[in-house]
Amino acid sequence: VNRFGKNAALRVWTTAPFNAEPPLDLLVGSLVTPIELFYVRNHGEVPEVDPAAYRLEVVGMVDRPLELSLEDLRDGFARVTLDATLNCAGNRRSQLIDVEPIPGEVPWRDGAIGNGSWTGARLADVLAAAGVDPGARHVSFAGLDESEANGHVMSFGGSIPLVKAVSPETLLAYELNGAALPPVHGFPVRALVPGYIGARSVKWLSAITVGAEPSTNYFQTRAYKLFPRDVRPETADWDKGIVLGELSVNSAICRPGDGKTVPAGQALVEGWASAGGDRLVARVEVSRDGGKSWLEAQLVGAGRAWTWCLWRARLEPEPGPCELVVRAWDSAANTQPEDPAEIWNLKGYVNNAWQRVRITVAEGPLERARSPLASRPPSAPPR
Amino acid sequence: VNRFGKNAALRVWTTAPFNAEPPLDLLVGSLVTPIELFYVRNHGEVPEVDPAAYRLEVVGMVDRPLELSLEDLRDGFARVTLDATLNCAGNRRSQLIDVEPIPGEVPWRDGAIGNGSWTGARLADVLAAAGVDPGARHVSFAGLDESEANGHVMSFGGSIPLVKAVSPETLLAYELNGAALPPVHGFPVRALVPGYIGARSVKWLSAITVGAEPSTNYFQTRAYKLFPRDVRPETADWDKGIVLGELSVNSAICRPGDGKTVPAGQALVEGWASAGGDRLVARVEVSRDGGKSWLEAQLVGAGRAWTWCLWRARLEPEPGPCELVVRAWDSAANTQPEDPAEIWNLKGYVNNAWQRVRITVAEGPLERARSPLASRPPSAPPR
Repeated sequence: VNRFGKNAALRVWTTAPFNAEPPLDLLVGSLVTPIELFYVRNHGEVPEVDPAAYRLEVVGMVDRPLELSLEDLRDGFARVTLDATLNCAGNRRSQLIDVEPIPGEVPWRDGAIGNGSWTGARLADVLAAAGVDPGARHVSFAGLDESEANGHVMSFGGSIPLVKAVSPETLLAYELNGAALPPVHGFPVRALVPGYIGARSVKWLSAITVGAEPSTNYFQTRAYKLFPRDVRPETADWDKGIVLGELSVNSAICRPGDGKTVPAGQALVEGWASAGGDRLVARVEVSRDGGKSWLEAQLVGAGRAWTWCLWRARLEPEPGPCELVVRAWDSAANTQPEDPAEIWNLKGYVNNAWQRVRITVAEGPLERARSPLASRPPSAPPR
Repeated sequence: VNRFGKNAALRVWTTAPFNAEPPLDLLVGSLVTPIELFYVRNHGEVPEVDPAAYRLEVVGMVDRPLELSLEDLRDGFARVTLDATLNCAGNRRSQLIDVEPIPGEVPWRDGAIGNGSWTGARLADVLAAAGVDPGARHVSFAGLDESEANGHVMSFGGSIPLVKAVSPETLLAYELNGAALPPVHGFPVRALVPGYIGARSVKWLSAITVGAEPSTNYFQTRAYKLFPRDVRPETADWDKGIVLGELSVNSAICRPGDGKTVPAGQALVEGWASAGGDRLVARVEVSRDGGKSWLEAQLVGAGRAWTWCLWRARLEPEPGPCELVVRAWDSAANTQPEDPAEIWNLKGYVNNAWQRVRITVAEGPLERARSPLASRPPSAPPR
C-alpha cells in the first residue's frame, strides 16, 4: 500500500490532489470494497486534522447552534452502521472522452465506485438536537480542505435537500469498514449521502449549515451540473444545467477486461450495477454479440437500497473478436441509454450509456497465464 | 359527454370494460386535466356503489381493524388536496406494437396519462388510526369491481410498500378536480399513489390490508410485470419479471399530431413529460431532424414532484417531410432509451423510448383550416 493506504495496483490519475481508481478485476472481488481498493476523488491536498481539536459546527436556520467534538458525535448520538455505495459523478467519463475530448477532467474508467460499510451518527439525529427551523429546505456541508477550482482555492462544499438530510441513511460517518475513517477518505468525519453523486458526501467536514436555499459553494453552483450535449464551455450559461443529486441506473463489465483474450467455451463475465436514489437494481442483461441478443445475469447482493450489486453471467461466445455489452434496469423501470454520444456533456458527468468491452475468444483453451478467467477462481463475495 | 362523463372526442378502445384516452392536442390544453378528458383504464364494469352503505375495511397487521363509512373518512381525517399525475403502465404501448404485435392488450397511444387535483384523506393518517404492527412491510388494496383476467372474474387489487403508503402524498381520494370522484374513476373512494403505475391507485376501494408481504392479487403477482425483450408468453416464467411500481422518465409530443401538415416557418411543438417516483422533470429536448440535433424545450409547471409538466418549443423545420423527436431527463439524471425495440416486452408495459412524430412542413403558409397549429392559440395553462 502507498502513503494514502492504497493498493499499488490502483491506477493513479493525479498525485496532488490524489485521484485513483482500482483495477476492475479486483473491484468486483467482494461486495464490500476493501479500503485499499476504494477509489479516491480529491480536489486538494488531504488536510491533517487533530482529532482532539476537531470541532463540527451546526449553524444556520437552527434553534440551538452546535459545536461538536469528535467525542460528542461518537458518544452523544446513536451509532449506526450501514452499507452504502459511493459513485463519483465522473465515473465512466473515459467513454465520453472517446466520443469527444473533455479537457481538464480526470478520465475515470469504470472504477470510481466503491461500496463501504460506514459507521456514524444519523444527520437526522444531529439536526434534531440543533432544532431545525420550519422554513429550512437545504443542508449545506463545508470541508476543511483547500481545493482548487477555476484558479481559486476554496474549501469543498455542497448541499442536499433537507428531506434527504433527515432520511435515516444519511450519516455523519467516522468509520469505514470497521476502522477509523482514513485521512484520504475524510478523517475524522465526512458526510455520507447514499444514492447521490459522491461529491455530496463532503469529506473533512467542518460545518453543516441549515438554510432555505442550496449551498452557494462553487462545487454546488458551477461544478457538478449536467448540460445538454450541444453546449460547449464557451457557450455554457453556468447558471443553467441540471444540478446533479441522485444518481441514475448504471452498470459495467469488470471481468474479463477490455482487450483480453479468453479461452473458447464458457466465459464467466462479471461486473457491478447500481441504481440511484433509493431505487434497487432490478435486472442486468449481458450481450456477447454487441447488443443483438441478451442474457439475464445473476445478481449478487441485490435487493437492498443504497448499495450496488455485483452480477455474473456465463456466456458461450464464438471464437474470434467479441464485443460484450451490459445494461441494467432499476426498480422504477429506468434503463440505460445505448449511445454515449447522446449523453455526452462538457464536464463528462454521469455517463450511464451501455458499457462495452472488446475481447478475443481463442480457438481453444489458453495457457493459464494468458487467461484472466482461468487464472482466478470465480469471485465469491463474502456476504 | 357520454354516459361515463367523457368528451365525445376521446378514442374509445373498448366499451365493456370502458377504456378510452383523449386526443393528444386536447390533453395538453391545461396542466390540470379536465375530468371529461381524463383517460380511463378499467378491467371490469363500473360498480354501482351506494355511498350511504359504503364501508372501507382496514385490516391485517393492525392493532385496531377499522370499518369506515364515507362520512368517517371525510370527517374523521384531515382533508388534503394535491395535484398528481396518473399514468397507465400501458401508456405508449402502440409504439411497442409497431415493433412486434402484443395481442390482447389495449393499444394505447400517448394519452393514457392525466394530471388531477385530488382531495382525500392521507393513507398515513388512516393507518395511524388503525395502528400498524412493527413487522408490516406492505399495504394491499382491493376494489369492489368484478374484473376479468386470464378467464377468471376477480376484484382488482395490488399493493405498495408500507414506506410509500405512509408517505404524505399517498391518499384515499374521494374528490377529483373539486367534485366527487366520478363513478368511472372509482366513486366513492380510490387509492391515489403518485409516482407509481396507475394500476396501484385501486378504484372503488373496499379493503386495505396491512401485511408482511405484497398482495397476492393477480394484478400484482402476474400482470404488471416487466419481462426482458426476448421472453415470449409461451416461455415466460410468471414468477419472474420486474414487479412494476415507480414509473420511469417519459415524454411525448402532442401537437402537432402524427401525419399532420404544418405551415412553413416557425412550428410550435407541445407535449407532456413526467418523472416517476418523487423525481422531477429536469430537461426536455426536441429534435426536428429525427434526433440528429436537439433544442431545449420550455417547461410549464415543472419543479413539483408527483405531477407531469407540459413543454413547448418553437422549431423552424425545413419544408418537406419532418421527423420530430422528444426525450426527457429526470432529476436523477436518468434519460429515455432511444429504441423501442430494445425495451419491447410481452405485455407492452412502461414504454419510455424516444417518441417520434412524422409531419410534413408545407412550402408556404397553409389555409387556417388545414393547420392544427394556426387554428388554435398556444395553450395557456390556467396555473
